[in-house]
Amino acid sequence: MNTNIKLSLPVVCFVWQLSMIILFGVFVRYNEESDTHWVDYRKENNITSDIENDYYFRYPSFQDVHVMIFVGFGFLMTFLKRYSFGAVGFNFLVAAFGIQWALLMQGWFHSLDYTDGKIKIGIENLINADFCVAGCLIAYGAVLGKVSPVQLLVMTLFGVTLFAVEEYIILNVLHAKDAGGSMVIHTFGAYYGLSISWVLYRPNLDKSKHLNGSVYHSDVFAMIGTLFLWMFWPSFNSAIADHGDGQHRAAINTYLALASTVLTTVAMSSLFEKTGKLDMVHIQNSTLAGGVAVGTAAEFMLSPYGSLIVGFFCGIISTLGYIYFSPFLEEKLKIQDTCGIHNLHAMPGVIGGIVGAISAAAATNTVYGDLGLENTFDFTGPFAKRVPTIQGGYQAAGLCVALCFGIGGGIFVGLVLKLPIWGDPADENCFDDEIYWEVRQGAHEAQNTNWPLSSILSSGCFLSVETFVQCNHLNLTIV
Amino acid sequence: MNTNIKLSLPVVCFVWQLSMIILFGVFVRYNEESDTHWVDYRKENNITSDIENDYYFRYPSFQDVHVMIFVGFGFLMTFLKRYSFGAVGFNFLVAAFGIQWALLMQGWFHSLDYTDGKIKIGIENLINADFCVAGCLIAYGAVLGKVSPVQLLVMTLFGVTLFAVEEYIILNVLHAKDAGGSMVIHTFGAYYGLSISWVLYRPNLDKSKHLNGSVYHSDVFAMIGTLFLWMFWPSFNSAIADHGDGQHRAAINTYLALASTVLTTVAMSSLFEKTGKLDMVHIQNSTLAGGVAVGTAAEFMLSPYGSLIVGFFCGIISTLGYIYFSPFLEEKLKIQDTCGIHNLHAMPGVIGGIVGAISAAAATNTVYGDLGLENTFDFTGPFAKRVPTIQGGYQAAGLCVALCFGIGGGIFVGLVLKLPIWGDPADENCFDDEIYWEVRQGAHEAQNTNWPLSSILSSGCFLSVETFVQCNHLNLTIV
Amino acid sequence: MNTNIKLSLPVVCFVWQLSMIILFGVFVRYNEESDTHWVDYRKENNITSDIENDYYFRYPSFQDVHVMIFVGFGFLMTFLKRYSFGAVGFNFLVAAFGIQWALLMQGWFHSLDYTDGKIKIGIENLINADFCVAGCLIAYGAVLGKVSPVQLLVMTLFGVTLFAVEEYIILNVLHAKDAGGSMVIHTFGAYYGLSISWVLYRPNLDKSKHLNGSVYHSDVFAMIGTLFLWMFWPSFNSAIADHGDGQHRAAINTYLALASTVLTTVAMSSLFEKTGKLDMVHIQNSTLAGGVAVGTAAEFMLSPYGSLIVGFFCGIISTLGYIYFSPFLEEKLKIQDTCGIHNLHAMPGVIGGIVGAISAAAATNTVYGDLGLENTFDFTGPFAKRVPTIQGGYQAAGLCVALCFGIGGGIFVGLVLKLPIWGDPADENCFDDEIYWEVRQGAHEAQNTNWPLSSILSSGCFLSVETFVQCNHLNLTIV
Repeated sequence: MNTNIKLSLPVVCFVWQLSMIILFGVFVRYNEESDTHWVDYRKENNITSDIENDYYFRYPSFQDVHVMIFVGFGFLMTFLKRYSFGAVGFNFLVAAFGIQWALLMQGWFHSLDYTDGKIKIGIENLINADFCVAGCLIAYGAVLGKVSPVQLLVMTLFGVTLFAVEEYIILNVLHAKDAGGSMVIHTFGAYYGLSISWVLYRPNLDKSKHLNGSVYHSDVFAMIGTLFLWMFWPSFNSAIADHGDGQHRAAINTYLALASTVLTTVAMSSLFEKTGKLDMVHIQNSTLAGGVAVGTAAEFMLSPYGSLIVGFFCGIISTLGYIYFSPFLEEKLKIQDTCGIHNLHAMPGVIGGIVGAISAAAATNTVYGDLGLENTFDFTGPFAKRVPTIQGGYQAAGLCVALCFGIGGGIFVGLVLKLPIWGDPADENCFDDEIYWEVRQGAHEAQNTNWPLSSILSSGCFLSVETFVQCNHLNLTIV
Repeated sequence: MNTNIKLSLPVVCFVWQLSMIILFGVFVRYNEESDTHWVDYRKENNITSDIENDYYFRYPSFQDVHVMIFVGFGFLMTFLKRYSFGAVGFNFLVAAFGIQWALLMQGWFHSLDYTDGKIKIGIENLINADFCVAGCLIAYGAVLGKVSPVQLLVMTLFGVTLFAVEEYIILNVLHAKDAGGSMVIHTFGAYYGLSISWVLYRPNLDKSKHLNGSVYHSDVFAMIGTLFLWMFWPSFNSAIADHGDGQHRAAINTYLALASTVLTTVAMSSLFEKTGKLDMVHIQNSTLAGGVAVGTAAEFMLSPYGSLIVGFFCGIISTLGYIYFSPFLEEKLKIQDTCGIHNLHAMPGVIGGIVGAISAAAATNTVYGDLGLENTFDFTGPFAKRVPTIQGGYQAAGLCVALCFGIGGGIFVGLVLKLPIWGDPADENCFDDEIYWEVRQGAHEAQNTNWPLSSILSSGCFLSVETFVQCNHLNLTIV
Repeated sequence: MNTNIKLSLPVVCFVWQLSMIILFGVFVRYNEESDTHWVDYRKENNITSDIENDYYFRYPSFQDVHVMIFVGFGFLMTFLKRYSFGAVGFNFLVAAFGIQWALLMQGWFHSLDYTDGKIKIGIENLINADFCVAGCLIAYGAVLGKVSPVQLLVMTLFGVTLFAVEEYIILNVLHAKDAGGSMVIHTFGAYYGLSISWVLYRPNLDKSKHLNGSVYHSDVFAMIGTLFLWMFWPSFNSAIADHGDGQHRAAINTYLALASTVLTTVAMSSLFEKTGKLDMVHIQNSTLAGGVAVGTAAEFMLSPYGSLIVGFFCGIISTLGYIYFSPFLEEKLKIQDTCGIHNLHAMPGVIGGIVGAISAAAATNTVYGDLGLENTFDFTGPFAKRVPTIQGGYQAAGLCVALCFGIGGGIFVGLVLKLPIWGDPADENCFDDEIYWEVRQGAHEAQNTNWPLSSILSSGCFLSVETFVQCNHLNLTIV
């Protein structure tokens, strides 16, 4: 199989980036809070202080989300023993590629200024662009190690487009709420990735089975990803929530749900492993399920104990997923899911959508206050007459939309990616950085340069058996 | 020794989490700033903008503290060559377990709304919960590698409880100030851990001496922990300080103290090693001592040079502690302190308490201003008539309370943990992840699946001599 | 060569730190926003809320910058297979050393209160001190692995001093704007380091060539540095920008420029490597070039597409620099640039200065608004009559000043560092942590303690061929 991407990757990158420059030139401008006219805007609108610029409400959360996207997702996928460059590097590429397209797509739907036909962007657009690529990065988890970077870019191009449309339908047409994106981001992204993986099923993936696992240090690297996702998830779920109590409550709910998930994940992991040992796969992934599942309802009056309950069940379900459901998916449904996104994003995402629908339907004026209810669910303008029970129905409808877009879109994109032109690796080369990356090591250098063994040894770097064998080839005697 | 925790760990986790759900259901609600009634509260109290919600004052600091707890403490302990899973994984478990209990315990003491008997939580409660588990994680440092996860949970349960009581006595009864927790967190936590370690003394720990040390890469991982602790310590010490100048000043003082500590740590490390080489143990730990020691006085008018002086001495003392005092502690006092928390938390914590007492006693109206003095030391309500010299006395009393709770509580909990029911490892299995974790490696896979050696070699992962030996067992010839 | 720094390093550290304490005692005090008199100041100035303390405008950005300095720069340099301690450890030392001197130097120029002759510091001073050492850390990149820690401290002492002077000339005398420091930080720092490296040219550096490269895991560690730099660069460029729209716009421009750079870097890396594989060196470094180049113009009305264009070209130029220009620099110009700072900081810095000059000269009242133009370029006081075209000229002059200070200062400091008293490593010991660090490993322990091989093997740590050889020495049979 031809995995040479020397032509296709640069062409896609250059053409894409040039298109972005042109489209941004035509369409994108600063909004009134990031434009120098802010100083006039402030005076006209009697805004007493620069601190009321939306930047100060959202920038700390934005940076946390940014860390989740680039370090969180990137390092979480470094668990494979020999695909760390691909995990962290392609994640980087995909995200940088996707956020630009997301600014345009989401901009056309949400930030278009009809007076001049321009998209006006501010800090909230940056957060939403990060959110949008999160969906694609989730999908990447399912196909990690099995696709070429060009395929990933195609997947992201379609993924962002689909995302923007389903988001518009869910948030604007249906007027469902989804601050943390249980439906819009996680459900969509996970089923999008799983569907692609289903279409791209590789019956002979066993040929690279020896690389489809972790080593000690790669598991520690992956924990960097896990922890930054876990710690900053309260920022993720609160980043675009309402100013004031909305952001405050979303952070609290997420903090609690995640804490609860850790305990049930550990419990399940120990319970189902022989001799009660813990499995790093569960600790790295299932501990995050509570953050996914509390996403939609994070800004609702879910109550602290409600958040704990959501986290409780998600830790259990997600861990069971890794133990029982992932093998089932692979063997029976022919879905190869490298990172187990079905357990971390798909099931918890659906749960999150359901929790959101129920808690919206159960909202009352007593609990929320009249003003609070109106503010939280945005029962204003054309939706002024909507009541919580109806809102619950629309929330459920939103979940269905996310599922349809994920599955339908994934199957379509999977078929596109099946074309034999994308430079994807052969079955025996999956999960191997050597295919797409220059991999340097003491070993190779030794082979090429005939240094004395002593200088290699004194380097003290971790030499592999491979080196040892090569040393023998070079007729160096080891004393 | 039976280290099977298949029953005990899941049972503890499930029972605990269910209890938390019930207790949170009965007791915990949102406070007025995280409740949907905030919008009404704002109007009633003439709060002009959502930005004055406490969330915006404290959320950035909270997230930094959160990183310190989970990544900082977790990765700092990954320095052991073969206990990185335990370091970062059990740290994760303990913290997630402890913050829930801390919200309850601290809530009953500090955030109980007497009108309805509910604990009302907001962002400051989350920070305080993180602070509370910091005490327990410090204690974990003393027993790292020598206890089972179940013992850690028991230690945390008692630790959080003791913490909440001593904190109440120090901050509320004695009305001492301790923004960065030199006394409340570090002194208490360190002596709690050291006392437990003293009770659990293992005379034959030498059996696992070969695992009680670092390798090159594990030292680099540990620097991730060190640096995130060091960088975010200004946020730690300022997180719950007074709005405005209090937080501002606490951050400056901590920044300076830490910078100073780095220089004297490097100087001492070089001075006391043969040939002047630096020791990673010192760089990883002693560089943080200034942050501990400036904790109590961080929000006082310590002056920039005062902060530098505190950092100066702490770098010296802490490094000397690693060189001379730790061996003394182990040999003479029978206290085995894996991470050297005596040098990083205990001594600097006590110094911090003393610095706090002195600088409080020396406070004057000239330096602070009348209003400033009243605000900084909260000389209001029942404490309206207190003067700085008296305050200094109460600060010193607070330090004694922290010491007593740490030592007394630690001895008691140590005795509980000595019971032979907790699944702790045998002397020869200490510092070894294999006991409580599924550890995968190329080696084991090779043994199990009889792949050709060439495929292992081409994986390019770091294979150990162990693998090589196992290859020989499998009668694979290495050419 | 004598690399013993047992005397020199401690002496420099202690003398320096004591000097800092004395100078801070004489000169440095809190400013009105971090002093307890803030509460009075607020009342006198009708500041309605504590949230308008500059701390809340800048603290989140400060912490991000702090992470860039200590984790970003530190880990970016861990890519060498055997110099990770030196990379992250000396970076730590240099930064902690430099920020104190920077507070004084920059304080005398910018924050001196003439009423009492004291420097009054607040959060903005901490950010500026971090910025100032960034220049020195960039310079460290050129000489990484080839100098002793004492040399680094000398380099930093002079570097910070030169920085403060050139910064004063550029920002205050010329009244140029440089929010993200393309000129002041990157151009100066890079040419400072390159000039030092030129003076310290080592013709026989090939002797340690086997250590001047990466291994698999060290490249993953380096990605931690890359990503934290990349993610937090919007905070870097906006940290000291104007409140409100200034910070907001700077963050947006930087976000976009960096995204664009990633794509062109990947494209060029693939295009110029045989078989189209990607090179981690480019991904680690060139992806950041857009952040450097958008520094000066970040707070201008560069337009979103303008930012994309800047990033577009910088990714191309920086990657080409690594492929063609770095070998040319080394072979023809005798400049050995370990990290390739010429490609990451020098060229993009100069580009940034030029972009800044052009975009300043092209500023119009139509685009900026009258008030906006005055605010953005600070056309007030003695500069009230300056117009954009003239401002463009001064921007260009600022770039020249940065270049002159960098090159001139670097040559001078290089000559100082050439004195044979600083304990720098011999050519064959470059890039080797063993020279300045205690390096522990299973191997060495085995040699010293004669443990049975089985206990070493069971440790499961990555043992090197070196160990294996030593085992043979010890007459241990491997079965």
